[in-house]
Amino acid sequence: MHILVTNDDGVQAPGLLALAQAMREFGRVTVFAPDRNWSASGHVKTMERPLRVRETILADGTSAFMSDGAPSDCVALPLLGLIDEEVDLVISGINPNANIGHDVTYSGTVTAAMEAVIAGVKGIAVSLDSPEGFIGALDYSSAAWVAGRLVKQMLEDGLPEGVVMNVNVPYLKKDEFKGFMITRQGLRVYRDALESRVDPRGEPYYWIGGEAPTGVDEPGTDFGALRAGYVSITPLQLDLTNYKAMDVLKEWKW
Amino acid sequence: MHILVTNDDGVQAPGLLALAQAMREFGRVTVFAPDRNWSASGHVKTMERPLRVRETILADGTSAFMSDGAPSDCVALPLLGLIDEEVDLVISGINPNANIGHDVTYSGTVTAAMEAVIAGVKGIAVSLDSPEGFIGALDYSSAAWVAGRLVKQMLEDGLPEGVVMNVNVPYLKKDEFKGFMITRQGLRVYRDALESRVDPRGEPYYWIGGEAPTGVDEPGTDFGALRAGYVSITPLQLDLTNYKAMDVLKEWKW
Repeated sequence: MHILVTNDDGVQAPGLLALAQAMREFGRVTVFAPDRNWSASGHVKTMERPLRVRETILADGTSAFMSDGAPSDCVALPLLGLIDEEVDLVISGINPNANIGHDVTYSGTVTAAMEAVIAGVKGIAVSLDSPEGFIGALDYSSAAWVAGRLVKQMLEDGLPEGVVMNVNVPYLKKDEFKGFMITRQGLRVYRDALESRVDPRGEPYYWIGGEAPTGVDEPGTDFGALRAGYVSITPLQLDLTNYKAMDVLKEWKW
Repeated sequence: MHILVTNDDGVQAPGLLALAQAMREFGRVTVFAPDRNWSASGHVKTMERPLRVRETILADGTSAFMSDGAPSDCVALPLLGLIDEEVDLVISGINPNANIGHDVTYSGTVTAAMEAVIAGVKGIAVSLDSPEGFIGALDYSSAAWVAGRLVKQMLEDGLPEGVVMNVNVPYLKKDEFKGFMITRQGLRVYRDALESRVDPRGEPYYWIGGEAPTGVDEPGTDFGALRAGYVSITPLQLDLTNYKAMDVLKEWKW
């Protein structure tokens, strides 16, 4: 198996290294990631400018590709042929924060996995629900173990077509997990706030600031599972049609 | 009613002007759009840098706000309070190309409408299915008429909660439309191809090139409706959970 590992935090992020190392157990690993942080960058296809690709070395001495494109570009480029060998699985992460609820449309980690699935390749996104305000080096070992566990499971049981696997891992040691829970996407509660400031030349500028998002703690959701100490596994799809609303709209007099 | 008009092609795009003018019939209009083209930029929340906002004048002499943020930032900023007056509806477009199938996750036009719905405001995206390779000034009048017709309908019939309306208009005169069709998201067929080139210094660079995307012509889909000459109206949702896959995954031995 040939596994492509990417992320949205940049090629030197420790979460990517932990993920790449965990994947080596299952086959050949190619790391192809952005050369900088692209958090909350969404699903990008860079068409207005050309992209550069360079080789670099990770902290464990292994080689990796980095590009000035977005995370989804870092999936598109190798799948379009920049790398000769066919890719069997794209895994993205490990993001240092959870990607749950509405985060999935913003998240570079998740949209990288979407890009894979659109191209007909299996796609997994792995994120760590690190504690708010955590300072210091995060421990990615439990989340990396989860990623390996999931890939092993997929090899045994197969994976339904067209599914983007969105995995969120609580910040616990692996023997502290309550278990694995198959969840639905929950509701994020964003607490963004506008901060207006004035630059040294007297001109205004604006930060999208505020507190970190929280969520609605419902059982069966990604957010609820993390709160309860479970690894959350949410299968996502790329069909966004609201079929119930279709029925309502069909009743309108057009 | 207070309507916020935005787009992903930049504040001076002719499609935005046509849309803003069509919306004036229904209430007060604020234009708040990016200062440059952000096509295929996805759903962005700019948090790593501050944003600038400036006033500008559109080609019809009316005033508008422009920002160096992404389309979704141009929705977030006013909804977070940069504009005092409450916004009742966000409408994004008119995009010069269709946004159908998997395009909806990449599309700045659609993700701007998503941003509105996440903030609890109604969101509509309007795109024109202009002919491939069209050169010259596009005629946005039919698409602008459709946008007005849809807003009128929404005022009469209400709109289900949490629905992002994704509207695609065939490039026809309005009396040539076959009608309005409520559609589901179809399947895009991307024909991206990697183009490797070498710069004047001998270094390689890469374009994501290839032909324009096509789609699977199925009845009832956005792509099928456009092909048949119908205005396509697809209600989208922000819950991406694949509920069928959840049942499959629950059978796995965790």
